[in-house]
Amino acid sequence: MNRPSSVYAVIMAGGVGSRFWPRSREKNPKQLLEIVGEGTMIQNTVRRLAGFVEPKNVFVVTNRLQRNAIVRQLPDVPAENIIVEPVGRNTAPCIGLAALFIHRLDPDALMVVLPADHLIADEPEFLRVLGTAATVAQTTGALVTIGIHPTHPETGYGYIQAKERSEAGPEGVYEVKTFAEKPNYATAIKFLESGDFYWNSGMFIWRVDTILAEIHRSLPDLHAQLLNLQPSIGTPLFEQNLETAYGIIRGISIDYGVMEKAEKVFVVKGDFGWNDLGSWDEVARLAPKDENGNTIAGKVIPVKCRNNYVHTADKPVAVVGVEDLIVINTPDAILVCKKGMSQDVKEVVDHLKRKQMNEFL
Amino acid sequence: MNRPSSVYAVIMAGGVGSRFWPRSREKNPKQLLEIVGEGTMIQNTVRRLAGFVEPKNVFVVTNRLQRNAIVRQLPDVPAENIIVEPVGRNTAPCIGLAALFIHRLDPDALMVVLPADHLIADEPEFLRVLGTAATVAQTTGALVTIGIHPTHPETGYGYIQAKERSEAGPEGVYEVKTFAEKPNYATAIKFLESGDFYWNSGMFIWRVDTILAEIHRSLPDLHAQLLNLQPSIGTPLFEQNLETAYGIIRGISIDYGVMEKAEKVFVVKGDFGWNDLGSWDEVARLAPKDENGNTIAGKVIPVKCRNNYVHTADKPVAVVGVEDLIVINTPDAILVCKKGMSQDVKEVVDHLKRKQMNEFL
Repeated sequence: MNRPSSVYAVIMAGGVGSRFWPRSREKNPKQLLEIVGEGTMIQNTVRRLAGFVEPKNVFVVTNRLQRNAIVRQLPDVPAENIIVEPVGRNTAPCIGLAALFIHRLDPDALMVVLPADHLIADEPEFLRVLGTAATVAQTTGALVTIGIHPTHPETGYGYIQAKERSEAGPEGVYEVKTFAEKPNYATAIKFLESGDFYWNSGMFIWRVDTILAEIHRSLPDLHAQLLNLQPSIGTPLFEQNLETAYGIIRGISIDYGVMEKAEKVFVVKGDFGWNDLGSWDEVARLAPKDENGNTIAGKVIPVKCRNNYVHTADKPVAVVGVEDLIVINTPDAILVCKKGMSQDVKEVVDHLKRKQMNEFL
Repeated sequence: MNRPSSVYAVIMAGGVGSRFWPRSREKNPKQLLEIVGEGTMIQNTVRRLAGFVEPKNVFVVTNRLQRNAIVRQLPDVPAENIIVEPVGRNTAPCIGLAALFIHRLDPDALMVVLPADHLIADEPEFLRVLGTAATVAQTTGALVTIGIHPTHPETGYGYIQAKERSEAGPEGVYEVKTFAEKPNYATAIKFLESGDFYWNSGMFIWRVDTILAEIHRSLPDLHAQLLNLQPSIGTPLFEQNLETAYGIIRGISIDYGVMEKAEKVFVVKGDFGWNDLGSWDEVARLAPKDENGNTIAGKVIPVKCRNNYVHTADKPVAVVGVEDLIVINTPDAILVCKKGMSQDVKEVVDHLKRKQMNEFL
C-alpha cells in the first residue's frame, strides 16, 4: 500500500445542456445555472466535495465560451486550474488532459472525476461512497467507477454490470463484469430485474498514474499527444500546442476507450439521491408543488391549471386551463412544452442552428 | 314619408376587451388592434361603411384612455366627432349622447349604431342589409335592429325573437316579438330549433328624432340630463357638464332601457359572416391553419405540435409536443391558454386588478 495521497477533483463542464433551452445556452449552459435550489450546479458540485477535496485541488475542464463564467462562479478554485479545451473530444481526452496537469503536481495523487451538472440529494452518503471508492482506488491501483442503484428502467443511461461480490471486499464494492450502452426499454427492464446492473453515473476515482498508464495501454495515440503537450504546460506555447493536439486527437469516451478495456475495474454502489437532471421533465418532477400540482417561479398567474411547471424571468405569464405543461420564459426566448416531451427540446436547438438563429443558441 | 335623410354612424368604442388580454389593454383595446387580417377593427368598421356613411358623418363614443389612438387611427373622421365619456354607463347613455350631437347637426338624420369590434366577412351583403334597415327606419319611424341568423346554440349572446313576417314588409324584415337575455345551453338549442330567434348583434338603425323620443318616453331621467347638456355642446363648459351629468346618469343598456319598451321594433335579418370575436378561441377558429392545424405568427418554432394558435410579438417561442393551445406573447406579458378556456382570460385581468398590477391592464 502506497502512502496516503492528496486528492484532486476534475469537474467536466463542457456540455451545452441543449435540452434545457431556453435557460441553458452556449455561453450560459446548465451547469452554470441555478436550476434546483440555491447555487449553480457547478458551484454545488465543488461545494459538496468540502472536506474531501480542497478547492485549490479542483480542476475544471471546459471550453472558451464558459471559461470566464466558471472563473467568476468558483472564486476559490485557482484560475489556472480551469482548463480550456479548444474543442470537445468526448471524455477520454478531457480526462487525460486533466490527469496530465495533476500528475505534474503530484504523481501519487488520487483523482476524482465528476460531471458538473448532476444533482445529489444525500451529500453525507455521497461523501461516504467517495471515501470507499478512494480507498479501493488507492489500495488496488484499479479504476473505480460509481454505479447508481437504479430505481426505474431508464433508457437514457448506460449501465454497469457487477460481478458477484468477492468475500474479501468491503460492502457495496464489486468487480465490474461489463459496461452496457443505453438499453431499449425491454432490456432496461431486464437490467433492473437482474439486480446486478447499475446506472453509469460518469463519476470515477483512480490514481493519476493508473489512469495515465491505462490510457497509454488502450489509447496510445492519445497518450502520445498528451506526452507531447506536457513540457509546455504553464508556458505561453501551451494553448497553441493544445490546439494542434486536439486537431489530431479523436473523440472517444472514457468508458469505451479505457474502462471497457481495463483489466480490473471496480464499481462502488451509490444510493445518494443522484439525478443527472437530463431534461425539464426531470426538473419538474423534482420541484416542490402547490396544492394544484403547479410549480411557479416569477410573476405567474394561474387560472384553472394543474400540474404545470412555469418559470418566468421577466414578463408575467398567465396560464389558463392548461395541464401538464412546462413553460419557461427567459429574457430572450420562450418554451412551451408538454410534460413527457422535453427530450424533444433539443430539436428546437437543432432548428435554431439550421436557421442560423445563433443569438438564441 | 320624410325627405331623404343624411346618414350618420355612431361607433361604440368604449370596451377594454379583457378577454383579449394580453394583446388587448386598457390603453390599446381590442378595437384598436389588428386581430384578423389588415387594419384595426375600428378602422375596418369605418371602412366598410364606405358609400353608406361618409367619414365626416361618423361619430365615435369612447373613453379618455383610447381617444388619442382613435383620432390617429381614423384620420378621415373629424376629431370633434370623437366623443369622450368620462365613465362608461352602458349603451343607453352612450347612444343618447351621440344622438344629441347628431340631432344638433341634422334633426332629420338617420343614425346607425355599430360596435367597433365586430368582424364582417361579406361586406356587400352587410351594406345591402343596412340599406334595407335604413329604409325601414326611415319609412316607419320605428327602431330597427339587425338580427344575425344563428348558426349554433351560442350562450354568449342575447337573442331577438321575430313575429311572423307581415305580408306587406320587405324580405327579411320582421316585427320584434321579444328580446331574450343570454340563454343557458338547453334554451339556446330551443331558440335555434324554433327558427324565429336571431342573435342580438348590437347594431341598430333609427331616425335620430325617434331614438330621442323613445329615450324621453322610457328613460326620462336620462333624457333630462341630455337636454341639460345640449346648450354647452361645442363650448368649453361641455366637459365639466358631461362629467356632472355622468355622475347622475345610471348605467343601462339600450336593449333593456329602450328597445324592450318601445311599441314597434323591427329586426332585419343579417347573414353576412358576422362574428363578434368574443374570445381568443373565436380568433383561433377563424384563423388560417397549416397542415398540422397550427396558426403561427412571428418567430415560432413548432416541434410535434398540432392545432395551436401561437402569436409572438418579439422573442421566439418554441412549442414542443403541445396541442390545442393559444399562446400569445406581447412585449410585456404572456398568455398560455387551453383552447375552449379563453373565456377565463378575463379572470387573469381580474387577478391583475386585485393585485394592482396596473401596468399589465
